[in-house]
Amino acid sequence: MPRVRVVLVEPKNEGNVGAVARAMKNFGAADLALVRPCPLGKEARKRAMHGNDILEAAQTVDSFAEAVRGTDLLVGTSGVDTRSEKHFARISLSPRELGARVAPMQGIVTVALGREDFGLSEEEIAECDLLVTIPAAEEYPILNLSHAAAIVLYELFAASSGRRSRREASGFEKEKLHEAFAALLEVTHYPAHKRARTKVMFRRLMGRSVPSKWEFHALMGVLQRATKRIQRLERGA
Amino acid sequence: MPRVRVVLVEPKNEGNVGAVARAMKNFGAADLALVRPCPLGKEARKRAMHGNDILEAAQTVDSFAEAVRGTDLLVGTSGVDTRSEKHFARISLSPRELGARVAPMQGIVTVALGREDFGLSEEEIAECDLLVTIPAAEEYPILNLSHAAAIVLYELFAASSGRRSRREASGFEKEKLHEAFAALLEVTHYPAHKRARTKVMFRRLMGRSVPSKWEFHALMGVLQRATKRIQRLERGA
Repeated sequence: MPRVRVVLVEPKNEGNVGAVARAMKNFGAADLALVRPCPLGKEARKRAMHGNDILEAAQTVDSFAEAVRGTDLLVGTSGVDTRSEKHFARISLSPRELGARVAPMQGIVTVALGREDFGLSEEEIAECDLLVTIPAAEEYPILNLSHAAAIVLYELFAASSGRRSRREASGFEKEKLHEAFAALLEVTHYPAHKRARTKVMFRRLMGRSVPSKWEFHALMGVLQRATKRIQRLERGA
Repeated sequence: MPRVRVVLVEPKNEGNVGAVARAMKNFGAADLALVRPCPLGKEARKRAMHGNDILEAAQTVDSFAEAVRGTDLLVGTSGVDTRSEKHFARISLSPRELGARVAPMQGIVTVALGREDFGLSEEEIAECDLLVTIPAAEEYPILNLSHAAAIVLYELFAASSGRRSRREASGFEKEKLHEAFAALLEVTHYPAHKRARTKVMFRRLMGRSVPSKWEFHALMGVLQRATKRIQRLERGA
């Protein structure tokens, strides 16, 4: 996984800068560069929360070129996607596609986000190796700056970390559960012609919910308890 | 694709509420409900931008129950995931997994986000059909409220493109199923101190598997049949 740098170009709202620093901390990105930013004060620090160290270490520079120096892949963000081949410079990836593209990389990936109102300039866009556009509602596709940053960083983080696994029930335990379900159908005299499909239904439900070992045992306990109670009452009668 | 409602529980920062309204507009969600919110003024409106209509139409209510009424799938957000099976009530999906589960649905999906500092309460968490946790850096996994909302809404929006629907059980039918499960625990004299968590376990299993109407009815039939058989045998004895 590459190192992720974030570049904010001429941010006008210090709260946004702070919020971006927080999102960076949330998603494991540490390098922030600010091109001609607004003054940063209390509001920026407040919004940064535990990302304050990132805010304090941020590099403030005069030009886009300086901010992106040393980058291995320069990613621009754009609120405008296009399907027109004539505007090939604006054809972009989704954040998810970006994650997949970037995950196997080494080196430094820089995500550049433009001004709150105008985004990145044509010249800045032209510098980028690729663009990313966040899919959004046609009616209002322009995201808040820190929201856009958070979503791109979230996808980069998600692409880098394989899902942690939890202890899933084994095939053996699963079969025990299905036996317990079948036994309950049996003792309740469930209509014979419906049994097969009801068992399949239950198998599908469990298959989709991917229960943990603990959940399997708890559910099996409920089913076995019902079956035993019926059997005991029948013996008593 | 279902209709998406967002519920904010006791938000303390009006800017966050505005920013959530904007993110909702960006991702095509229209219904906002606020449970005992802070006063909303200029800052909320400023941050909402073109999502101001959502902010103005937001429903303000006194209780969580009121805010989630009529919901077909209730999704809680939690900053704490767990790998411990004993804490099954906190086992959660990623936002992407949530998108995949929800995309084929009809009806209303409600995404509930808790307080900026404490999140959702244990009682609110227990009400939820499933939980979603945004994967984030261990060092600082707590996202800003509107960032969390934006990421979940982004995934729901992304999952909505080009999906087929199947008839999913309604909220009403689900409650009937949970009642049938509770009744079975009752007649089998399931240990009282384990009942609450076993019910939550069952709610989570069903929440993750997103059963169809047919599956709900079939499973409810099995449970009710067991309960009735026990009751009949008891009367006979």
